[in-house]
Amino acid sequence: MGTELLTIGTELLLGQIVDTNASWIAQRLAEEGIDLYYKTTVGDNAGRIEAALRQALGRADVIITTGGLGPTEDDLTRDVVAAVLERPLHLDPAVLAHIERRFAHRKIPMTENNRKQAMVPEGAEVLHNPNGTAPGLFLQDRGRCVACLPGVPAEMKPMLAEQVIPRIRESFGIRSRIVSRVLKTCGISESKLDHAIGDYFREMQNPTIGVLAHAGEIHVRLTCKGEDPAMITRMLDDLEAKIRERLGPLIFGRDDEKLEALVGQLLRGRKATLAVAESCTGGLLASRLTDISGSSDYFERGMVTYSTAAKEEILGVPAEILRESGAVSLPVVRAMAENVRRRSGTTFGLAITGIAGPTGGTPGKPVGLVYIALAWEGGDLAREYRFHGGRELIKYRATQMALEMLRRHLLAVPITET
Amino acid sequence: MGTELLTIGTELLLGQIVDTNASWIAQRLAEEGIDLYYKTTVGDNAGRIEAALRQALGRADVIITTGGLGPTEDDLTRDVVAAVLERPLHLDPAVLAHIERRFAHRKIPMTENNRKQAMVPEGAEVLHNPNGTAPGLFLQDRGRCVACLPGVPAEMKPMLAEQVIPRIRESFGIRSRIVSRVLKTCGISESKLDHAIGDYFREMQNPTIGVLAHAGEIHVRLTCKGEDPAMITRMLDDLEAKIRERLGPLIFGRDDEKLEALVGQLLRGRKATLAVAESCTGGLLASRLTDISGSSDYFERGMVTYSTAAKEEILGVPAEILRESGAVSLPVVRAMAENVRRRSGTTFGLAITGIAGPTGGTPGKPVGLVYIALAWEGGDLAREYRFHGGRELIKYRATQMALEMLRRHLLAVPITET
Repeated sequence: MGTELLTIGTELLLGQIVDTNASWIAQRLAEEGIDLYYKTTVGDNAGRIEAALRQALGRADVIITTGGLGPTEDDLTRDVVAAVLERPLHLDPAVLAHIERRFAHRKIPMTENNRKQAMVPEGAEVLHNPNGTAPGLFLQDRGRCVACLPGVPAEMKPMLAEQVIPRIRESFGIRSRIVSRVLKTCGISESKLDHAIGDYFREMQNPTIGVLAHAGEIHVRLTCKGEDPAMITRMLDDLEAKIRERLGPLIFGRDDEKLEALVGQLLRGRKATLAVAESCTGGLLASRLTDISGSSDYFERGMVTYSTAAKEEILGVPAEILRESGAVSLPVVRAMAENVRRRSGTTFGLAITGIAGPTGGTPGKPVGLVYIALAWEGGDLAREYRFHGGRELIKYRATQMALEMLRRHLLAVPITET
Repeated sequence: MGTELLTIGTELLLGQIVDTNASWIAQRLAEEGIDLYYKTTVGDNAGRIEAALRQALGRADVIITTGGLGPTEDDLTRDVVAAVLERPLHLDPAVLAHIERRFAHRKIPMTENNRKQAMVPEGAEVLHNPNGTAPGLFLQDRGRCVACLPGVPAEMKPMLAEQVIPRIRESFGIRSRIVSRVLKTCGISESKLDHAIGDYFREMQNPTIGVLAHAGEIHVRLTCKGEDPAMITRMLDDLEAKIRERLGPLIFGRDDEKLEALVGQLLRGRKATLAVAESCTGGLLASRLTDISGSSDYFERGMVTYSTAAKEEILGVPAEILRESGAVSLPVVRAMAENVRRRSGTTFGLAITGIAGPTGGTPGKPVGLVYIALAWEGGDLAREYRFHGGRELIKYRATQMALEMLRRHLLAVPITET
């Protein structure tokens, strides 16, 4: 069974927007074991939409379109599909009522052209659109399925996932699916990861394992193919358990979990508080921590001591340490962490100093050299790192490693130098 | 003359990567006045590449392919193009020498399969690839042009811009081109913009004017079509001058210029220094300022006073003001700005306090309520704003408005409430 995706919209052909719908749909179809063979984009032009649709009908079993379902004159998908499949359009009173309710709710007068969105080709199932006015359409035609979805991602995504994919699976008796799970690590090299789980990586047939490097993180992706969702979950659970047996708490999170959120949860669970002192990261660490709603429970304050004077005045880093070791040094980062903790009265102080570049590096202290320290009542630890990339990437990697240092300390996992 | 874009790669059909090449190419073609009618994506499958190519040859004058030119077995573009156009492949010694030099330079042994990249279809022009091993190909065939480009963006982009577009323009005698220029504003509403320049907006035929809202910015895009690049520049300059006559310094920058960089330039030019105090933005303002290389010339320090205690202790905001007005209030933001300036010894103090949400709002102080203040020796100003969007967007909009407040003050432009 082959699928063809037809994305419709002149803005896509002018490059005014990136077609993120297409990659999202492609990924969802791959997860469902539905093969996508062609992806075609045409503008808001009836002739070319028709040509692309006729061709897709000639070579695919499933055709999914996005875009062109709205109320304007440029929205042609509904008319072209109706014409090509020879299904006259009828006004659907239920759809019209839904559209009218949406306008009434938002206290906006409904213009006449919006009625167009209530026109439905004969025999088409209407796909409810709780997030917009234009409904989707699902048609069966001589053994093929045609699904027409809106172009707005927030409207398209739930419609595809909840209404279209189940219908395609049903129509073609698809029973297998592909489910992925991502285990995230930070501060461990790819070669160490290979050393730790390379045997699984090479031997496993299903689920399979892939390792992918991202900025400041390395992901282990488990991918399982099967028919029974419960069985797939069990197989992924088994493999995850095996990998966790080897990597233990080096895995900081799963799937969409963010390091700054997980560190926050750990702090909250221990009723611990945090203050940070930043030099080269310039506030990014504080900003990431405060991106998490509820972070005021544990995040107390941050000091962006960009100048040497600020390090002395507001953090009390002794002038002689700054003079002797330089602002980018282990003794300074240690003093920053300890002093921000003590002055803020928090459980932990976390500090970063370094050279984000592109200028300011020297042979002895090159761009990418970063020191990170964590201080608590009666103890501290500090490490030197070398990060690569541009200024913003070095800032990000440094904050990522600082968060990981705190996470590992909270879980009593050794912080190795990488 | 119609163009068809054929992007090749199974990873595109699995949704593993977003096809940013496609939108970039589409945009470049639009700028050159080259019409793109179809965009098709197929996987690394010879039969489907052939079908898509044959179809494109049947309906387009120019066919541009990306991907499938590398050394692996999956790289099929070269073979399929040669077969479909009936052009036997020959080894090109100059291309082979280039590939060998690249491997030698990087001290990596060249494997046999890399020779494949030196195979060139008869009559094809070789497009030099300074950024990779696989060259591009340009073929003329019965009045049509076929350009095959690598899939790696850094290799594809200069090849398209410098080698393919000039050949297409030449082949089809295209003399017109479309050039855009973006003028950026912040802190002015779309309706005010319409009031100020709506007559140009509606009357101008060439260049045309479009207004586009982005997060925290509104862009005025001037688009000019013409043949003579010097004439186009002159026409854009003229219209820009007219718009600047109306909007003056409300335009903060052009094209890729960033507000944080422009504010930095203004501060540096005046030998002024800056300290910031942030509550709801949590360090984002400091982080954006320090994303700019060389910001240590003017950025002195930042205080992320997330807790009420921090506002009292490190900024010296009087407890009674905090108690009476609340942490999110005009008196508090004023005290934050003045105190961070005084304590840091900087020319300016810039402060933000507000409710980023999604929780923490009340009927009197809803999510999105933000106060911003700027203080200098002997004066200050403070404003209330209401921003919408999620937590991260509210944070961003608040920092954007704070930067704009400083920029306007530096240029003696009134800060109106929006």
